[in-house]
Amino acid sequence: MRARVTVTLKEGVLDPQGKAIEGALKGLGFGGVNGARQGKIIDLELAESDPERARAEVSAMCEALLANTVIESYSIELV
Amino acid sequence: MRARVTVTLKEGVLDPQGKAIEGALKGLGFGGVNGARQGKIIDLELAESDPERARAEVSAMCEALLANTVIESYSIELV
Repeated sequence: MRARVTVTLKEGVLDPQGKAIEGALKGLGFGGVNGARQGKIIDLELAESDPERARAEVSAMCEALLANTVIESYSIELV
Repeated sequence: MRARVTVTLKEGVLDPQGKAIEGALKGLGFGGVNGARQGKIIDLELAESDPERARAEVSAMCEALLANTVIESYSIELV
């Protein structure tokens, strides 16, 4: 079973990387950009085939390693 | 209008960051992980409100800056 974890910075947390992207896009002539925020995805290949248990396992992985829950939120999508 | 760009490494391209995540998860006791690949997302806030033109604009941004199309593929989602 495959899972996609999406990790994004929480609202209000400063995102210098997103600001840099926004500035670079404007510098390239894309004036219609009012904001940019960067996040990450982690695609996992799991041995578990039960969706419920897979989701619980991935959630534990997020809490333990994949996301810093102080400043980041995560969402899990099973595919 | 908001757009989410997802950038992932193409199949077959070596992903040391994904390998490191996989190793770390196994080290933490998550033995059911058979593979991990890392990608990134960029959330954009656009002035453009026409979906067709917004998609064309974001596609141009991806080609120019957001993705390295030699080794990465990208997908665009308008929200």
